[in-house]
Amino acid sequence: VGCLGPNSVDRVLAWIDEGIHRLEGEEATPREAVGRVLADDIRAVRPVPPSDSAALDGYAVQAYQTLGASSYNPIELPLIVVAAGDALSEGMDAVVPLEHGEPDPAGRVVVVEAVAPGGNVDRRGTAVAAGAALISRGTQLAPRHIGILAAACVTRLAVIRRPRVGILLAGSRRPGAEGDSDGPMLCALVERDGGIVLDLAAVDRSRSALSDALTAGGFDIALVVGGTGPGRDDMAAAALAAAGELAIHGVALRPGETAGLGRNAGGIPVMLLPGTPAACLWSYELFAGRAIRRLAGRDAGLPYRSHIMTTTQKIVSSIGITEICPVRCRPRGGVAPIASFTEIGLMAAVDADGFVIVPETSEGYPAGTPVDVYLYDDR
Amino acid sequence: VGCLGPNSVDRVLAWIDEGIHRLEGEEATPREAVGRVLADDIRAVRPVPPSDSAALDGYAVQAYQTLGASSYNPIELPLIVVAAGDALSEGMDAVVPLEHGEPDPAGRVVVVEAVAPGGNVDRRGTAVAAGAALISRGTQLAPRHIGILAAACVTRLAVIRRPRVGILLAGSRRPGAEGDSDGPMLCALVERDGGIVLDLAAVDRSRSALSDALTAGGFDIALVVGGTGPGRDDMAAAALAAAGELAIHGVALRPGETAGLGRNAGGIPVMLLPGTPAACLWSYELFAGRAIRRLAGRDAGLPYRSHIMTTTQKIVSSIGITEICPVRCRPRGGVAPIASFTEIGLMAAVDADGFVIVPETSEGYPAGTPVDVYLYDDR
Repeated sequence: VGCLGPNSVDRVLAWIDEGIHRLEGEEATPREAVGRVLADDIRAVRPVPPSDSAALDGYAVQAYQTLGASSYNPIELPLIVVAAGDALSEGMDAVVPLEHGEPDPAGRVVVVEAVAPGGNVDRRGTAVAAGAALISRGTQLAPRHIGILAAACVTRLAVIRRPRVGILLAGSRRPGAEGDSDGPMLCALVERDGGIVLDLAAVDRSRSALSDALTAGGFDIALVVGGTGPGRDDMAAAALAAAGELAIHGVALRPGETAGLGRNAGGIPVMLLPGTPAACLWSYELFAGRAIRRLAGRDAGLPYRSHIMTTTQKIVSSIGITEICPVRCRPRGGVAPIASFTEIGLMAAVDADGFVIVPETSEGYPAGTPVDVYLYDDR
Repeated sequence: VGCLGPNSVDRVLAWIDEGIHRLEGEEATPREAVGRVLADDIRAVRPVPPSDSAALDGYAVQAYQTLGASSYNPIELPLIVVAAGDALSEGMDAVVPLEHGEPDPAGRVVVVEAVAPGGNVDRRGTAVAAGAALISRGTQLAPRHIGILAAACVTRLAVIRRPRVGILLAGSRRPGAEGDSDGPMLCALVERDGGIVLDLAAVDRSRSALSDALTAGGFDIALVVGGTGPGRDDMAAAALAAAGELAIHGVALRPGETAGLGRNAGGIPVMLLPGTPAACLWSYELFAGRAIRRLAGRDAGLPYRSHIMTTTQKIVSSIGITEICPVRCRPRGGVAPIASFTEIGLMAAVDADGFVIVPETSEGYPAGTPVDVYLYDDR
């Protein structure tokens, strides 16, 4: 069954990008939509401000009545206090700033400086015209967007549906080992990338049990964890081939060599992740996570910021395989490699400040090389 | 009542940093703890791996029995298939890689290369020794940390409690204006910063109603929105003075001049935010958000990455006031200012790719100046 041998990371990424696209939109309120991706452009339902409004705190007036006002010629007018943002009442067309007026005990205001028509007034629609484009399709909605939506009376909007992710843990004879580590870690990763974990199910590590589970469906993408290794362990690839199409199995990625992917008979993408925790993490980050981020309409790239930094020690890697190299930032700048995922497993992801992806064409970098470092930002 | 006039932004930040500290810890499971900040160092409960384990897929053997094995001298041994990560059974001390053994129909394995004791074995505790330090106090737990916690049998850990945030919207005579925009926006901001919105309550804009609400308590921090302006609008400061201590009112920040802060009689911090949406946003981002991030144990700084970028046009600002200047990235690099918050309110936060904070000592920057730009990363 389609064990296609080592594929380049680029080939896997191309398969994902060509065949996996954003899901359809669904309706949400602005608050529900924070962190989600807009499925449509948003337009203002009403202008902002909705009517002529005070631009600052002061006294609403009819401008012509202030003509000639000065401290030598104070003019008494009806007292209409307004705060910045208040709608002006009918007939008022200017605002006298607080410091140019003085309320008097008779309930009037004494104005000592003239104001022009429209002075200190935000005209209806100045910030946003009615029907104006507010936020574009594809934007991931942030808290700062929420205020203007309320101001422009946008109460429902279309956001990309959250991908429903089925996670199938191919049963292991090692209680407390990979199943325990991979399941909770993957749930947290899927949620970070905008997915909903529909099902975290342990399935017998047998071709038929896995194949049945993949056929069941109900998800937008399935992750099969474990059962990808060579030898007796290679159940996941066979099960996927039986349940649909095994497109790729075996990737020139370390950790993550035994990852694979394809589709079930319903065309739903299925990602095969190794059970070894570090390999599970990295085949998720590069492949499964990318697929989920694409389904959710997010940026498909790794959700870490990257920076060019200089190596303070040699980074060693093998030609022909893409390697994830955990690194630590040095107190005086630059980065140095630390014990690899092969040596200390997931502990490398805990000890590191970030990582370098050494492509398959490279055998690493001597000390003093500028490299692209993805940084963890949590300490 | 303590209207202390314009205070520098630095003075407000110093007040926050001196008096507002992380809350106490509470217990959580690793999954609940993702995104939260560790209140204590975490130590491994058991070593990883918990026993000597296969480092790769192959056949578990007693190394001495493979002595002299070669393709000319194949040695038949009991068949014990192991996958990477499997615990070795009693007495086994090495793993023959898949390619150096061949299972035979009699249920034995034919080994064609010798392996040394400990060969291809990860010894108990290689990745993590029992009791070893795993993750330090103060780390914000990320998905990549979760796997090792499971592997090391850490099932409960101490995380900083989520700050409970009371939001009091000082009632306005402008239905559909500031209350509508500020409430949902603040809820989203508080959640982003690790807080829980305990209560989003509209309160009469009267000194006594606000003062009563501030006395009620039940929160770790309260945000009062609106009622901070000069003139008849200045209820919030008076209410806080009556309910406890008004420490600062009036800040040299634009937008956000009328922000203030203090404590209620119970010592709980109270932040006064202007009701004008843009001023509400920025006094939240710089002051209230900082306080909440500190309570939650997070990095107190603005949760945006910053980059040095070059201005392609002049940025104008007033001496004596810290100004938030929205900017857009130019297609050929650099940033240019766009219509300000004073001109288009919150729409500036939507149109911008980020912002520059121009300190009160500066009157802006000519074109071609390198400036620190905080970038929104959502498109």
